[in-house]
Parts: sequence; C-alpha cells; structure tokens
Amino acid sequence: MNSYYKKDEWLVVEEGFDPEMNRESESIFSLGNGYMGQRANFEEHYSGDYHRGSYVAGVYYPDKTRVGWWKNGYPEYFAKVLNAPNWIGINLTVDGEVIDLAQVKINSFRRTLNMKEGYLERHFNITILKTKTLEISSKRFLSMTEPDLGLIRYSVKPVNFSGSVSFTVYLDSDVRNEDTNYGKKFWKEVSRHISEGSGMLISRTMKTDFHVALGMTYILEKDNKKVKIKPEITDRAKYVANTFSSVAGKGEELVLYKFVSVISSLNYDKKNLPAIVNQRLEFAIRSGYNKLLSDHINEWDKIWATSDVVINGDISAQQAIRFNIFHLNQTYTGKDERLNIGPKGFTGEKYGGSTYWDTEAFGLPFFLKTADKQVGKNLLLYRYKHLQKSIENAEKLGFKHGAALYPMVTMNGEECHNEWEITFEEIHRNGAIAFAIYNYIRHTGDKEYMADYGLEVLIAISRFWSQRATYSENLKKYVILGVTGPNEYENNVNNNWYTNSLAVWTLSYTLKTIEELEKGNSSKLGKVLKKTNFNFKTELPRWSELVKNMHFNVDTKRQVFLQQDGFLDKELLSAESIPKDEKPINQHWSWDRILRSCYIKQADVLQGLYLFEDKYDTETIKRNFDFYEQMTVHESSLSACIHSILASRIGNIAKAYELYLRTARLDLDDYNNEVSDGLHITSMAGTWLAIVEGFGGMRIQDDKILLKPLIPDNWKSYSFHSRFRGILFEVKVSSTQTIVRNLSEKSLNLVFDTKNYIVKGKTEIIVK
Amino acid sequence: MNSYYKKDEWLVVEEGFDPEMNRESESIFSLGNGYMGQRANFEEHYSGDYHRGSYVAGVYYPDKTRVGWWKNGYPEYFAKVLNAPNWIGINLTVDGEVIDLAQVKINSFRRTLNMKEGYLERHFNITILKTKTLEISSKRFLSMTEPDLGLIRYSVKPVNFSGSVSFTVYLDSDVRNEDTNYGKKFWKEVSRHISEGSGMLISRTMKTDFHVALGMTYILEKDNKKVKIKPEITDRAKYVANTFSSVAGKGEELVLYKFVSVISSLNYDKKNLPAIVNQRLEFAIRSGYNKLLSDHINEWDKIWATSDVVINGDISAQQAIRFNIFHLNQTYTGKDERLNIGPKGFTGEKYGGSTYWDTEAFGLPFFLKTADKQVGKNLLLYRYKHLQKSIENAEKLGFKHGAALYPMVTMNGEECHNEWEITFEEIHRNGAIAFAIYNYIRHTGDKEYMADYGLEVLIAISRFWSQRATYSENLKKYVILGVTGPNEYENNVNNNWYTNSLAVWTLSYTLKTIEELEKGNSSKLGKVLKKTNFNFKTELPRWSELVKNMHFNVDTKRQVFLQQDGFLDKELLSAESIPKDEKPINQHWSWDRILRSCYIKQADVLQGLYLFEDKYDTETIKRNFDFYEQMTVHESSLSACIHSILASRIGNIAKAYELYLRTARLDLDDYNNEVSDGLHITSMAGTWLAIVEGFGGMRIQDDKILLKPLIPDNWKSYSFHSRFRGILFEVKVSSTQTIVRNLSEKSLNLVFDTKNYIVKGKTEIIVK
Repeated sequence: MNSYYKKDEWLVVEEGFDPEMNRESESIFSLGNGYMGQRANFEEHYSGDYHRGSYVAGVYYPDKTRVGWWKNGYPEYFAKVLNAPNWIGINLTVDGEVIDLAQVKINSFRRTLNMKEGYLERHFNITILKTKTLEISSKRFLSMTEPDLGLIRYSVKPVNFSGSVSFTVYLDSDVRNEDTNYGKKFWKEVSRHISEGSGMLISRTMKTDFHVALGMTYILEKDNKKVKIKPEITDRAKYVANTFSSVAGKGEELVLYKFVSVISSLNYDKKNLPAIVNQRLEFAIRSGYNKLLSDHINEWDKIWATSDVVINGDISAQQAIRFNIFHLNQTYTGKDERLNIGPKGFTGEKYGGSTYWDTEAFGLPFFLKTADKQVGKNLLLYRYKHLQKSIENAEKLGFKHGAALYPMVTMNGEECHNEWEITFEEIHRNGAIAFAIYNYIRHTGDKEYMADYGLEVLIAISRFWSQRATYSENLKKYVILGVTGPNEYENNVNNNWYTNSLAVWTLSYTLKTIEELEKGNSSKLGKVLKKTNFNFKTELPRWSELVKNMHFNVDTKRQVFLQQDGFLDKELLSAESIPKDEKPINQHWSWDRILRSCYIKQADVLQGLYLFEDKYDTETIKRNFDFYEQMTVHESSLSACIHSILASRIGNIAKAYELYLRTARLDLDDYNNEVSDGLHITSMAGTWLAIVEGFGGMRIQDDKILLKPLIPDNWKSYSFHSRFRGILFEVKVSSTQTIVRNLSEKSLNLVFDTKNYIVKGKTEIIVK
Repeated sequence: MNSYYKKDEWLVVEEGFDPEMNRESESIFSLGNGYMGQRANFEEHYSGDYHRGSYVAGVYYPDKTRVGWWKNGYPEYFAKVLNAPNWIGINLTVDGEVIDLAQVKINSFRRTLNMKEGYLERHFNITILKTKTLEISSKRFLSMTEPDLGLIRYSVKPVNFSGSVSFTVYLDSDVRNEDTNYGKKFWKEVSRHISEGSGMLISRTMKTDFHVALGMTYILEKDNKKVKIKPEITDRAKYVANTFSSVAGKGEELVLYKFVSVISSLNYDKKNLPAIVNQRLEFAIRSGYNKLLSDHINEWDKIWATSDVVINGDISAQQAIRFNIFHLNQTYTGKDERLNIGPKGFTGEKYGGSTYWDTEAFGLPFFLKTADKQVGKNLLLYRYKHLQKSIENAEKLGFKHGAALYPMVTMNGEECHNEWEITFEEIHRNGAIAFAIYNYIRHTGDKEYMADYGLEVLIAISRFWSQRATYSENLKKYVILGVTGPNEYENNVNNNWYTNSLAVWTLSYTLKTIEELEKGNSSKLGKVLKKTNFNFKTELPRWSELVKNMHFNVDTKRQVFLQQDGFLDKELLSAESIPKDEKPINQHWSWDRILRSCYIKQADVLQGLYLFEDKYDTETIKRNFDFYEQMTVHESSLSACIHSILASRIGNIAKAYELYLRTARLDLDDYNNEVSDGLHITSMAGTWLAIVEGFGGMRIQDDKILLKPLIPDNWKSYSFHSRFRGILFEVKVSSTQTIVRNLSEKSLNLVFDTKNYIVKGKTEIIVK
C-alpha cells in the first residue's frame, strides 16, 4: 500500500486509476471548508465501488443504536454525521455513450490534491466506442471565503473526432448513509424546483428536522464563450436535473461551470432558505468562477502564511505534514462555536458522532498555536454550552449536586456511544476538558475566560471526580475504581494512573482558581459560586483531602508509575515479541487476550507525563518511557505522536523520528488499512505537535516560550510558525542554528534551552 | 404481584382473567414433556396481548446477532429456540360471533395447572350478543408417554340459548419469534395437506433445515356420541384448517377432541415424516383421548413417586416446591443426549441458546438425585459430544494443543453469545463442566465413564487452565487475569477466587484421575492419552506446578477469601443500605456503578465454598458467609438457593428459610418482574437442593449418604426422595425425628450427623 500516491511538496497525486483503491483515494482527496465537506467522488456516473459522502457541518441524525446486550444508562441513539444530498453530480454522454470510468478504456488518469491552493483536480484520457478518444478534466473547490459555495469546472474535449456531448447537471437527495443501522434513509424532500438553467432541492432530516437547501446553476462555454443550449428538465422525487447537448469539434473543449450553494437551517430560518439560495447563486454567477477561485486561493495563502511547516531534505515528511495541516484547516475553521472536530472530519462516516476527547487533547493545542484565539475559544465554548447536558448525563449515572460527566461521543451534548467500558468508564475525557481551559488560558492569556465560563465547568467536573472517588479502608487512600484509561486495551481497571492524575490535577486547579479569583475577581467569582450552589464548607475540604490522599501506584523497584493496580502481575513482554502476522493485535487477537496482555494501545501513563511534564524530571520521564514504549503497539492514531514528543524530550531523536513518521504518514501510507473509512483528522494535530513540541521542544513557561530544538539526522532544516498570546513567530531549525523570527509588533519572551532572550517585534534572533 | 395465583398443594389456579397478567400466566401455566413445550396460549382467537410460544426440543435457528461494537472472536450467530408452528389452534364462532376473550363479557374465568396429573385446564363463562351465555372449557396435555402427541379437549355449552357453534381446527406455520433481530420469519413451508377431518403441515427452518411435521385430526361429540359434520377446507400458504358447525341446544355440551402429532427431523428421516405423522395420528385416535390421558397421568404418578417433596404446615412452600419439580420434569426427561436444559425451558424465548453452565451447576445435581443414572449420563454426553467444537472455540481465542473452552451459551456446541466480558471471560463455566464429571461418578458410582468419556474432557479443560494461567513475577505465583466470575456484577477482574479454585481443582482431579487409571485401567488410559496427544513430560509437571503455586487472595484480618484482587479497595457496604426504590440495582444503576460497588449478583466465593465444602471447616464457611451474604443482592435466580444451603450448613435456619422462600416462589410471586418472559427452570433445581442439601443436610461421603437435617420453625415436617448409586430412599424430617426409608433392595450406608447406620433394603430407620 505504501507510496500509492506520488510524493510532492504541495501535491498529492494519484497517477493511473486503480478501482480497488478508489475508496482510499476518495478519503485522501477529500475537500472541506469547515462548513461542508465532500469526499472525492466522481462528478459523472460511476458503476464501480465507491463511498458517496457529502457532509454539512452540524447536520446529524440520531440513528437508533444496535447493541446486543443493553445496559442501564446507554443512550438510545447514536448521532451520525449525515451523508447529505449530492450536489456534485454531472453526468456525461458522448455520442450516446455514457461516460463511466468503470466501463470505458482509460488511457491515462491523474487525480491531484493541490494543498497550496485548496482544490481537487482530475484529468483523464479515455477511449469510447472503440476509437473515439476524449480528454476530460474536472476541478472543484469548496470556497474558503464563501463557505456555502461549491464550484466545479468540468471540461470535455474530443481528441480525434467531433461529437455530440450531452451533460446532465443534477441535484439528488435520494442518498443514504452506509452505516445506517436499519437500512433507513434519513432525508425527506421538503420541496424542489427546476427550470431551464437552475434547480433547487430542499431536504429535511428525519427526527432532527434540519433543512438543507441545495441550489445550482451552470454555464457552458466553448472558447471562453457561452454556448447556447436548450436544456431538458427532469423533475422527480428527490431529484432535479437539466440535460443538454452541444457539439464539440475535434480538439475543441466544452467547459461546464457548475455553481452550487448549500444552505442549512443551522444558519438561516427555514422559510428563508429558497430566497437565500437564490441570492447566493446570483452572487456566485456575478462573481464568476475565476474570481471565487482566486479569493479561495488567497485565503489558503493566509492560512499557510501562519501555519506552514517547511522541512528541507525529506520530501516524504514535507508532504505528510502539509497534508495534515491542510486537512485540519479544511475540517475546522473555528468560526462557529456549535461545530467541532470529528475524528474523521468530512472524510467519512466512521465515528459518526462529531466530538471526542481528541478535540481537547489534540485539536485544541494545534489551533491554539496556529489560529486566532477565537478559534480556541469557540472550541471551549462548545463544551461550555454542553455543560447542562453533561450534568444530566452524570445524573443518569447516579451523580448528584451538579457533577458533570461530558459525553465520550457527542453531536449536541448528549452521549451517543454505548460500550459500557467506554461510555461509563473512560472518564478521563472529563479531565481533558478541564485541562483544555488551563491550556487555552496559558496560550492566549485570556484570564477573563475563567470567571466568565471556565470555572463553572471546572466546578462541575471537580464534583464528578469528588463523587467518583471512594475511600479504601484497606489502602487508607482514595481510589478511583472501574475505569478505562486512554489505553483502551485495558478495561474496567482500578486506579488508572493517568485518570487519577487528571482527577487530582482538576481538583487542585479548581481550588487554586477559586483562591485566585477570591483575591482578584471576587464579584464574578461570587456569581459563579451562587449559580453552581457551591458549598465552601463541604466541597473545599473534600477536594483538598482528595488531592492529598489519592492513591497512585508505583513500582518501587523499577521506579515507574503503574498504569493501574495489578499491572505488574501481567507477563511483561516487548511488543517486538508479537509475531508479525498477528499485528495489529486488534485485528487478530480476541478481546480477552488483548486485555490480559501487557500491550498498550496508546499512550496512557505517558499521556499523563506529557500533560504534567513540569512535575517530573527527565530521568523519571525516561524510565517510564523506556518501560512503556516497548509494550506499546500504537494501534490508536493518537499514540505515536505523544511518544514521539516524549522521545524528543528525553533526547532520543532516532526514536522520535521513527514515531513521527508513523504518525505523519498514517493516512497517506494507510498504515492500518482503514483509510477507505476516512482520514484520522484529530491525530493529524498530534503530528504537528510532534514537530513543534517534539523536535522543536517548544513549551510555554508562564509568559515565555521555551525552545529546545533537535533535528532528525536526515533533515537539513525545518521551520514552523506558532502563536503565543497574540504574537505570531516563526522558528527555523537547522543542525547548526535556530532562527526565531517575531512576525508581530509585540516582543516575544523566549527561553532557548536555559537562556532568556527577548525577540522584539518584527525582528529575528539567531541562536547557535 | 404477590399471590395473584391461588395457593394449593397440587394446583396453580388463576381465578378471574386479568389481561395485564396474561403473559405471566402463559409462562406459569406452560406445559412440556421434554420433547416439546407450549406456553399457555389460548386455543381460540385472542386479540389481546399475548406471547405465542410452541417449542420443539433441539430445533433452533442461528439468528444473525445484533451488536453495537464488534470484537474479534464474537460468534456471528445467536442460536434461538424457535417459536414453532402453532398446533393448538381452535377458533370458535357462536351464532356468528367470534369468541375472543378480549372482546366478550367474561362472567367467570379459571385457569388451572394440575401438577399432579400434568395438564392445563381452562373454564370460562361468557356472555355474547348481550344475552347469550356460554360455558367453555379446554383441557390439554403433552403426553409424557407419547411425547409427539398433544391433545386438547375443548367443549362449548350454551347456557341460556340454543345456537349454532362453528369450530375452525387449524395448523399454522406463519409464526415468528418475538426476539427476531431483523424481523425475519424463520419457517418455510415444505408441504401441506388438508382433507375433511385431518390436516398436515410440514415446515422447515431456514439455514438449519430442521423439518417439523404437524398432523392433526379431531372428533366432535355430543352426549358422548360422535357428531356428524361436513367440514369446509381452508388451504393457503402455511395454514390448513377445517371449519364446521353444529347446533347445541340449551344446556347441551359440544366436545371437540383435537389430536396432534409433532414429528421432527431430529428423530426421523425427512422423507418419512408424512408417513410417521399419519401412523401416529391413527395410533392416537385408536388409543383415544381418555386412554392417552390416563397413561399420561400414570407417568406423572411415577415421577412424583420418586421425586415429590412433601411439606406439612406451609402450603406456600409446598405449592412452590411442587411447581419447581413439575417444571423441571416437563423440561428435561433425559431420554435424548442431544437435548439439554434451557434456562427458560419451554416457557419463553429468552436466553435463546439452550445450554448454560446452569445445567451442570444446578440441573445435573437435581437429576442425579431424582432420576435414573442415564439421565445424568446423557447430560454429560451432551458436553462430551461438543468437545471438538469447544477445542475449536478455544483455538479462535488463541489457545492451542487441544485446550477446550466450552461455550457460555450454546445449542449445538458452538458459542452463541457476544458480550466480551462473558463470552471470553466467564470461563469458570469450563470448571463446572469438569466438576460435573466428578459429581456424576460420585452419585452413580459409574467409574467406567471416566476412561470412556470423562478424561478426554478433563484433559482438554486442564489444558485450557494451564494456558490461561500466567506467571506473575511480582507475586511469584500463577495468576488468572481478566475473568468474570459467577458474580457478573464484576467484569474483567484478576484472580477470581472461585475461578482459580475451579482451575486448581480441575488440574488436580485430572492428575489424580490419570494416576488412578494408571493403576486400574491403563489400557483405556493409554487410548485416551494417545487420542489427546498427551505429553507426560511437559503437561504433568506444568499442571502440578500450577496446583502448587496458584495465587489465592485472602483477607488476613477478616480471614475470608477475597472474591478477586483489589476487592478490599471497594467501599464495603451492606445490601441493606441500598434504598428500596433503587432495587433491583440492575434495573436502576448504571453498569459502572454496579461494577465498582461491592454488591454481588450471585454466590461467587460462596459458590466455591459450596462445591468444595469438604476442604473448609464450619468456622471458615461461616466467616465467608457472613462477609459475603450481606453484600449479595441475589439478582440472579441462581443465588439464593446456594446461600440457603450454606446458611443451613452453618446452622442459621432462619436465614436459610428466608433465602429458600426467595428462590422457591421466584416465579409464582414474580419477584423480579420478568415471568412474562418465561420461568427460571434451572434455578428451580437449586430450590430443590435448598431443601435436600440445605434443610436435609444431605451430602455424599464416599459411598455413604450423610444427613444433618434441620427444619424451619413453621414446618411440621417435610420429606423428600433421593437416589444414590441405584438406591431410592425417602427422608422424612420432623422437629422430633427423622425417618429414612430405603425403597430399594440394596442397603443404604448412612451417616446421620456423625453416627453410621445401615438402612437395609425395603426397611426404614427412625433417628431422633
């Protein structure tokens, strides 16, 4: 599977068409603009295997869940990202022959993702009717400046003949999700309209009643001149189309521009949708395809200017990191606090719920460092607005007094996952949401956020930890029983070190915050405490007691933290001892065997050391890294990046590089044979962190940025951008020196290794 | 819900019809004869709520499973007991009015289960068409002597008018399971035949291709004389019927006798089914309803003569124990080694797989003590024949070299359950199957069984334990990680005391058996060792090592065995501290809360103390009982009986009686609000054991029977029958004396308390 796609600094290229790889390519070449997304399905009819995917952010369907054995507290519904009505359709017939890449003779085929400029292109040369050769191209983009607009340039050129070319430009809402549990279709028609030259299809989702209006119009050109056509209309349930023909002489190119506007009731009143769509189509036509494309490219230029990573001397790594940055920015633009970052973004249906703890643990640090602070804030507000539902969720599980358990998987704040060992026990997610508040504030310096929003969430999560911990008479310590840590290859364990660490951290951060606000902003504090019915007399002492007396398991001999109680009773083996044909173990071993083995799916104790690195010296980190890395099989996409950062931290650059490659090209090289389902969007953020925090050694120390860069042997240099409290700066690392360039006006306080520097606005310093 | 049914020594009576209770009553009044079973559905049309259930033993369907999150090793199919074609149907119309108990005015209604004679009766008096009053009765039984025959006497008497009575006698295979996962019907028609006076319907199951032939014939009588009728024929897909009318004068009774034969391809060649059915119907008509009924009653007399328990002074307890004995004997007759004892027998669809460890742990001891030794042997041979499939099942989970893991739930030897924490981890079931071999031999004295069948199974199970245990460097002991014990309110725990005990016991029993056979029957032993590729050099020392060095967790302070590692870290609370409105906790608490609580679903450590009682002194049993009983919520039907036996063992008769009542009237009083799904057949055996082993204190000591009887305060006396190595004896206990009556020729070696007696054949002794 390796290197199916060509390596290039700015492009991903599929040269030649392999139908077996089509689902993979549809994922890899996906487009998105934060508002909608589209897998790289063909515009024209295709009778081969494919996975249709058009997605509108925030539009979901609560499908009835399928579960063998029900447990109390399971949600009845699983919110699915919906495969939305299909707007890309352009069917093509030439001299009566339907163009279908599964049927025609393909002479050449090239599919290109242009990451610099944000579009998808396809060129193919085919022969039909035995002798007639055609060149066909399509280019499409989802506008980054006008996010409801999708544009397609579709051209047809007879190479060695003159013929009649017939186009059918259509909209179609008769679509279904591949992951529908009971074979249901989720879209109903609200209305449709078709005329010569334009069409509209308004659909609504069952149950959730989201309305999505698609409007289309188009222009046919030859030699840059509009061709006059007389379209036939097709008007049937859930489908509207215009069909029209034109003659193309030998070597003449017919170019069809399709303009589509996708408007959802998330943003507009349902009754206004038709008018809005029409306005938007008028705007699109008035602007024209070229202007919209150049605006779109400008927007991508701006993104790259503040988030690009340049790697000299390793094209494979270069392509990979840009692929990751590109897809992250396609998935989430931070403009709408109701949206979030699905693990697969807009590239597939899997993990149908939009939001996991991936957002806080991986997505947020990336956006905090590469985007305006409002982007990070919106990710936090998303959770803030779900606080009440999280309190209700905790109540369902028997918690009281405003304790909150954020859902494992959610679209609208309600839990929609049901495996008891995850839904009920993978509670460390709550800690990630608390930590995100700290992380946001230290990155942005926005201290107001705490009293305005953060503390309410912290109190609710602290209450959860306080009630979830119980006292062990036996140990004379507080314990947290029956949890699943980030390493999901252990279920229902006691005293997961990572979970206990997060619990104690949350409690102590909340206590400290209350103390600080008492001094600094006591009137706002008072409001929060009143709103949350906070009880000073009972809650504060209980939390302090838990902070002081939580149980943490340590192997005194090896001086490592123990992932959970009883971990040492396992056979402690190296992952290298697993036979090759049994990897990945999650595809070969039964679940019990995985559980009782020592093998670790993803960073767990190490995830904790990553978060709370400040508390531990390098030797401690190294001992734990050496102990756990050898047992870690990295069968989660979120694992290798954290290990890579820690390997850099302890100076093991070879290991760091090995782990970096594993995470960076996970999708491009399809390590886990699952790219057909979609891309690993959230882990892409981890890849970026592996460069910036790993190789770059970048950290925040109070109001300073710390750098301790390393560089992999085979890299000549690398550079990255980052933001810190309103300052944009660029770091360029080579084996001999590091340049830190401050691109803003404000001075940047820098610690390089152990030395302090001030990088004044618009200047750079060189450190050797 | 208490006392909806009238209490009576030999009857269960529903007086008056409550449609809300109909599903419950259909379960309670179920009939069966080991070969087929029938819920107490009405013969005539009923438009109210009911749960149709006709079952033919051994006829199942592997329905595709529904599971939210798939794990490697899960079976794709779940074998369901099928709701078989309906043979009881008799529709009734009087003066044009369809008789439907959901529509007519019911003046009186009485449904009776006659447990002494094994039939179901229904009498009701209704008014139709405003003024016309009718008396209707039905009586049906499934013959214990001719198990393919089902017979119904159905009579109609106009009380205050003369009218036209129309009967439709039919067979119908257009039925479905309520628990079908994808709404499918499982039966296809093979052929049908209908003529005036008789009909036949042959159906086959999809996938499994079982054929079931139903044949019917009937007689209509008035004043004991056959009434001449001219039936109309209905012949449509999956349905055949005869419809005919007759006039009944005021006070005249029309009596319809329906004879049905149910023949399955489990017992006959498919092509012979029509001929067999016809033969059987001829036989039935020739014998006549009355003769067949009296033969049936005689057979029940025989059963009661060897298995009845008589309780004087407690009608509630008396009715309950007979209800349990009755249903056990309806479910399993031990004539066919391919059959087993489903947890719900023939009373519902739930727990659709036929066989659980309930059979070995509860069913087998009951049948070993109340039935011919061949009955117990057939239960063992059932597992022996599934050995190869159990080895394959273990292979799927990564075990090697002929290790066997018997399925948690099965119909044909293949696993058909998928909850990882049960399917893969509730491995103690394997131990129950090993223990059953020991239990069978000590009850029957059939030592030949070991070399012929038993040892092969023991070796395969020992191999499983040997591979499942791993060495803990930390503890310097062998450990068994990641298991679920009988207490399913703990999942994925380490070193469950019960499981480890069973593992060690199995290994040591297998070692001892090999040693004994080496001395006694070395040629047979040689064959087994060759067949199993047994390796003396590696297997024997490994097993001995495991026996010597298994880890068992003990609370040294309390001197109790610990259910699992870390049990003491829980908050140890009494079940009494659970608020009433939160019970049963499995209907009110989320699963994680149950798991991290100390509460115990069913006997776990205590189940082990019950099995291996000989190894522990009374004080040890008492300490463990006191520690665990208070935390046990008995939310499994298999729990209270074991606790009751142990309460008797430690002399706590009040507690033993309290627990006895809980188990004995579980279904009659519908403690857990679930009788509508069917009865708890296997736990009924536990109830019987609670009297015999509990109050009676009966044990086997080598070749002797030990008795240490107690009697609950409110009982005048109780008596039970039991068998031991070919001897049938009766024990009658009152507060002043115990009579032991040997009903066989051979002498019975008895230990009463601590004193030895010999009860010669056909004599009795009285002990005070």
